[in-house]
Amino acid sequence: MPDSGQALLDFARQLFPICRSITGNGLRQTLAIIQERLPEMQIHEVASGTQAFDWIVPDEWNIRDAYLLDPEGRKIIDFQQNNLHVVNYSAPIDITLDLEQLQSHLHSLPDEPNAIPYVTSYYEKRWGFCLSDRQRSQLKPGNYRAVIDSSLEPGHLTYGELLIPGTKSEEIFLSTYVCHPSMANNELSGPTVATFLASWLQQWGERKYSYRIVFIPETIGSLVYLSRNLAVMQKRIQAGFNLTCLGDDRCYSYLPSRQEDSLADRVVQHVLCHTDPAYHRYSFLDRGSDERQYCSPGIDLPVASLMRSKYGSYPEYHTSLDNFEVVTAEGLLGGFTALRRCIEAIEGNERLKITVQGEPQLGRRGLYPTLSNKTSAASTRSLMHLLAYADGNRDLLDIAEKIATPIWELLPLVQTLKSHKLLASI
Amino acid sequence: MPDSGQALLDFARQLFPICRSITGNGLRQTLAIIQERLPEMQIHEVASGTQAFDWIVPDEWNIRDAYLLDPEGRKIIDFQQNNLHVVNYSAPIDITLDLEQLQSHLHSLPDEPNAIPYVTSYYEKRWGFCLSDRQRSQLKPGNYRAVIDSSLEPGHLTYGELLIPGTKSEEIFLSTYVCHPSMANNELSGPTVATFLASWLQQWGERKYSYRIVFIPETIGSLVYLSRNLAVMQKRIQAGFNLTCLGDDRCYSYLPSRQEDSLADRVVQHVLCHTDPAYHRYSFLDRGSDERQYCSPGIDLPVASLMRSKYGSYPEYHTSLDNFEVVTAEGLLGGFTALRRCIEAIEGNERLKITVQGEPQLGRRGLYPTLSNKTSAASTRSLMHLLAYADGNRDLLDIAEKIATPIWELLPLVQTLKSHKLLASI
Amino acid sequence: MPDSGQALLDFARQLFPICRSITGNGLRQTLAIIQERLPEMQIHEVASGTQAFDWIVPDEWNIRDAYLLDPEGRKIIDFQQNNLHVVNYSAPIDITLDLEQLQSHLHSLPDEPNAIPYVTSYYEKRWGFCLSDRQRSQLKPGNYRAVIDSSLEPGHLTYGELLIPGTKSEEIFLSTYVCHPSMANNELSGPTVATFLASWLQQWGERKYSYRIVFIPETIGSLVYLSRNLAVMQKRIQAGFNLTCLGDDRCYSYLPSRQEDSLADRVVQHVLCHTDPAYHRYSFLDRGSDERQYCSPGIDLPVASLMRSKYGSYPEYHTSLDNFEVVTAEGLLGGFTALRRCIEAIEGNERLKITVQGEPQLGRRGLYPTLSNKTSAASTRSLMHLLAYADGNRDLLDIAEKIATPIWELLPLVQTLKSHKLLASI
Repeated sequence: MPDSGQALLDFARQLFPICRSITGNGLRQTLAIIQERLPEMQIHEVASGTQAFDWIVPDEWNIRDAYLLDPEGRKIIDFQQNNLHVVNYSAPIDITLDLEQLQSHLHSLPDEPNAIPYVTSYYEKRWGFCLSDRQRSQLKPGNYRAVIDSSLEPGHLTYGELLIPGTKSEEIFLSTYVCHPSMANNELSGPTVATFLASWLQQWGERKYSYRIVFIPETIGSLVYLSRNLAVMQKRIQAGFNLTCLGDDRCYSYLPSRQEDSLADRVVQHVLCHTDPAYHRYSFLDRGSDERQYCSPGIDLPVASLMRSKYGSYPEYHTSLDNFEVVTAEGLLGGFTALRRCIEAIEGNERLKITVQGEPQLGRRGLYPTLSNKTSAASTRSLMHLLAYADGNRDLLDIAEKIATPIWELLPLVQTLKSHKLLASI
Repeated sequence: MPDSGQALLDFARQLFPICRSITGNGLRQTLAIIQERLPEMQIHEVASGTQAFDWIVPDEWNIRDAYLLDPEGRKIIDFQQNNLHVVNYSAPIDITLDLEQLQSHLHSLPDEPNAIPYVTSYYEKRWGFCLSDRQRSQLKPGNYRAVIDSSLEPGHLTYGELLIPGTKSEEIFLSTYVCHPSMANNELSGPTVATFLASWLQQWGERKYSYRIVFIPETIGSLVYLSRNLAVMQKRIQAGFNLTCLGDDRCYSYLPSRQEDSLADRVVQHVLCHTDPAYHRYSFLDRGSDERQYCSPGIDLPVASLMRSKYGSYPEYHTSLDNFEVVTAEGLLGGFTALRRCIEAIEGNERLKITVQGEPQLGRRGLYPTLSNKTSAASTRSLMHLLAYADGNRDLLDIAEKIATPIWELLPLVQTLKSHKLLASI
Repeated sequence: MPDSGQALLDFARQLFPICRSITGNGLRQTLAIIQERLPEMQIHEVASGTQAFDWIVPDEWNIRDAYLLDPEGRKIIDFQQNNLHVVNYSAPIDITLDLEQLQSHLHSLPDEPNAIPYVTSYYEKRWGFCLSDRQRSQLKPGNYRAVIDSSLEPGHLTYGELLIPGTKSEEIFLSTYVCHPSMANNELSGPTVATFLASWLQQWGERKYSYRIVFIPETIGSLVYLSRNLAVMQKRIQAGFNLTCLGDDRCYSYLPSRQEDSLADRVVQHVLCHTDPAYHRYSFLDRGSDERQYCSPGIDLPVASLMRSKYGSYPEYHTSLDNFEVVTAEGLLGGFTALRRCIEAIEGNERLKITVQGEPQLGRRGLYPTLSNKTSAASTRSLMHLLAYADGNRDLLDIAEKIATPIWELLPLVQTLKSHKLLASI
C-alpha cells in the first residue's frame, strides 16, 4: 500500500508522454509498463474486423510524426511537442493547402484560448490538427503544408486482463481505460490507481473475493471484453468500479450504476459519505464512460464510479491543460484510498447475528464501564449499536449506515465481539 | 384539432345561457347541442325513482319563469335575466310575504357583494331566490310577491354517452358534467373540452384504445352511470379523467385519484410537470366532483382530474361572476391541449426493449456525431438515455420520468429507433 | 381517570423519599405502595444468582445509614438528608482516611456545581459518596471518617406484575422501572403514570385487549422478566410502551422501537403529532432504557417510548435537581393523557369498510346539509373522508393519518356511521 501519493504520481508521469489510442503501439507500450508492475497481467490482441455486439473492431492506427508548416516553412504545429495536436485516428496526409482550406481541418476552443483540445475520429476517416485558439487566430493567409505520418491498417485492439483468484469465486470487477493520449486526470489517474490497487490486492492477506481487473480502450474495449466474457461476468461479479478521473484534489464524486442500489453503489456512497460528506452525487444520466456498456440493458452489471472531479465537470477536461497541475500526489492518494476502503468494506461485509438474547453483560468482559455516571462513553456506543442491529438480517454495511459510523471503524469491533463469542457470522 | 381556443370559446358561449339542472329540459337541450357535434353520442333517459346504489333518481325539475316583485310591484329579480337567481330545484310558488318572511328564502354572499350565488336543493323541497348582497341590502320593508313557475314531477334523468371503439378493448374514460346553469369555468369548460376531445379522437389515426365519454349530471349522474355499467368499466378502464374547470388561464391543477399512482395520475403529473412546473397539486382530500364516486371503495376506478383553476379555489366559483371574463380562448385551449397530451401519452405508452447488447453504434446509422469533441450534442442525449433505459421493464412513461424529458419529445425518437430496428415493443 | 394532575403529583411525592435500588427493601417498599392502589398486582422475588440470559441477579443491597465526618468530626454528608449522597450499591465501610485518599471515592459534577450526581456500581464492588462540586471544593485537608452501613448479601430481586385480562388474549404491554432513588422525572413519573393508567384500565368499560403491566428494576429487571416470560410475550404483545420521563411540562418526545414502524410506533407518532406537532423525535440510537432489552435481536418486541423531556436531554437528569421543580401536575397529566390516547387509539383501531358503493346519501340521514351552497361545512368533511378511505384495507389509524385528523375525533364518527349501517368492521 503506498505511503504517500508520490509513487502514484511518479507512475502517472511515466505513462503521460505516450500517444495512446484505442488501438496501436501506444496502447501496447502503456500496457507493457503496467505489466512491469503486474507481471501476471495477460495481454490480449483482438483482430480488426472482429464483431463486438453491434460494433466492429476498427483498423489499427499508428502514428510516427505530424506537423504543420506555415507559408514561411516554419513548423508551427509539432506532434513531437504534444500528441494532442493531431486528431486521434487521423488518416495519413501530406498536402499543401491555403489557410481557408486548412481551417476545416483545424480544431480549437474559443472559450479556452490557451488549451489544445482532444479530438478523435475513430469511425470516420478524417485528418486534422488541434491547436490553441490563441495560436489559430494568429495564422496568416498563405499556403500551409500538412503532414501526418500515420497508418490505418488491419491490425489489433490490445487490452490487459488480470485475474486475482480468491477463496471465493465471486468477483469484484475493476475496469479502467488506457486509450487517451497525454492527459492526466482523464485518464492516467485511472490506470495508475488501478495498477496500485491490483498490487495491493495481490499482497493483502484478508482478501477473499476474486478480482477481475481490466485495462482497456474505452467503449470499443469494454464492448470487446464484454462480448468475450459476458456469461462469466454476469455469473460472478458482485460489484464493479469504473476507475477514471481519480487524480485531482478538488472533490469526490459518485456516479451510480443504472440499477442505482447495487452493492457497488451502496459501498461508494458509504465510503464517500464518511470521506467527504460534500461529495458530488451524479445521476446515471450524467454517465459518459464504460458504465454505458457495463450497465446497458441485458448486460446489467453492478458497476459504479467513484471519482475525484468527474470527466466533463472541470475546465481542463479533454484538453492539454489536464496535466500535473490538475493531478497531484494528494489527489491520487485520495482516489486510491477511497477505492481501497470500498474494497475493504465489501470484503468485510457480512450478515452478523448477536449470540445472546438481550444485551450482553459487557461490564464483566471489560467492554463497558462498571461505574455508571451521568454520561456514558461515546466509544462504547458503537459497540452497543453494532450489537443492537446484528439481527442476522442486516449486513455490516446496512448496520454501518444505520448507526452512521464508517464501516472501517466497525470492522475491528466485529473482531473483538467475535473473539468474545458475542457475534457470529450468518 | 382546434387551431386556437376560439372555437372552444364559441361553443362554451353557445351553451352558457341554458338553465341546466340534474334533470329536465335544460339538460336535454345541452346534450342536443353537443350531439350536433357528436352525432354518435347516445342519449339515455332514466326514470325518476330508479335506484342508483344508495341513491334514488329524484323527480324531474323544469322551470319556465320566476321573479320577485317589490312592494311597488317592480320586478326586482328576474329569472329571465339570470337563471342563477332561482335556487336550483325550487318548488313552484306564488306567494306574497313581507320582507322578514322573505329573508329566509333569499341567498346572498356578504363577502362578495356583487355576486349572485349558485344554490341548489335537489333532495329537500324548498324554494328561494339568489341575489347579490348589494341588492339584498337595499330591499325595503313591505310585501313582496314571489313567483316561481316550475314543476317537480316524475320524469327522467338524462345523460349522454359516446363509445368510440379502438383496436383495443381497453378503455380510456372521460367524464364531464352538464348540470350547472350559467357558469363558465365550473362548468361549461368541462363539456366544451370533452366535446372537442371527442371530435379529435374520432378523427385521430393513431388511436388504439377505446374511449368511453359521458356527459352527465354531477353526483347523481355518475352514480346512475356507475350502477348501470360498473362491471364493464372495472374490467376495461385503464385510465380516466374527470373534466371540469378547464377554461381559465391562471394555472394548471391536478387532483389525484384515490389510489394516487394510477396510470391517469402518472400521466397527468408528467404532462403538467412539463407544461407548467408550478402547477397546483391537490390531495384527494380536496376532491369535490365525480371522482368522489369513481374512486370510492369498491368502485376504485383510476380517475384523476387535470384542471385549470380548481373548483372552490377561485373567487368567482359558484357565482354569477364565473363568466367569460374568467374563461378565455387561451384558457380553454390550454386545458384541451394538456388533456390531449395525456391521451397521446397513454396511447404511445408501452414497454420497450433495446435489441442489441451494449450501446448500439449510432454513428454508422447517422444518429451520432463521428467527430468526438469536448462536448456532445444535447440532442443525442435523449436518444442515448432512451436506449439506456429501454430494458423491457420500464414503460415509456417511466423512461420519460427517469430521463426528465416530455414523453411527446420521446415519441418521435421511438419511431426513429424502431425504424432502425434498435428498439422493440414488448 | 384523574381530573387533574394533582393526584398524580401527590403519588409521585409519596414515593419520592424512598432509597430504591435494583434490589432491596426500598424497592419492596415502593412496590407495596403501588400495590395499595393496584391490589391485584403480584410481587415476585427472584433469588440472587439466578441467570437471566447473559446476566446474573446480583446480591441484594440494603442500606441503613451513611455519612462522612470531616476532620472536626462534623457530619458534612448525610444519607438521611439525601439518599443520592451514597453511590448506589456501595459496599459497607467504616474507615478514616485523608482528603487525598478520600477524593477517589467522591463524585461531583464540575459543570453543575450545585447538583448531587446519581452514581451506581451494581456489578463492581465499590463504595463512594456523591456531593455537589461546590461542597467538594470547600473540603479541607485532614482526616475524614467515611461510614456506610449497608449490606450486600444473597437475597432477591423484586418486581411487580399486573395482568388485566381483556376479551382478547392479545396484549398491550406497559413497562416502567422502580430502581432509582429520590429523583422525580427520571424516575418517579414513570411508575406514577403506570399506576394511574393501570387503575383507569381496570375501570374502563371499552377495554378489549389484555394488559401486561410490570414495575421492575431497569435493565436487570427487564432481562429477568423477559427470561421468564419471553415466549408468551412474543406471542401476545401487539404493542408496548416503556414508561419513563413523563413528568415535566417542557416538551413531548418519542423514541422508536428498533423496528420503527410497529403499531406502538405508529400510535405514538399519531398521538404526539396531534398533541404537540413540535414533539421531539429521537432515533433508536438515542435509546437508553429497557427498550434496549425489549427490542434486542431475537426479542424484537414492539416497544416504543412516549416521554416528556427524555432522559439525558435535560440538565437536571440523574442529579438531585431532578425534583418537583421539574415535575409538575400539568406535566404528569400531559404524559398520562398522551399514553391514555395511545391506548384508546389501539383499542379503537380496526379495519373498516363502507357498506355501500359510491358515496352514501348522507342528506336523507341528516348527516349532510341538504342546501348546497358555495362552502360545505368543515364538520362533514371528516365524515366524508372517513367513508372515502374505509376500503377494508386501511385500519382506522391509517385513515386518521391519511386524512390528518386525530383518531380520537374519528372514533365517535365511526360509531355514528356504524349505527347507520354505513360502516362495518372487517
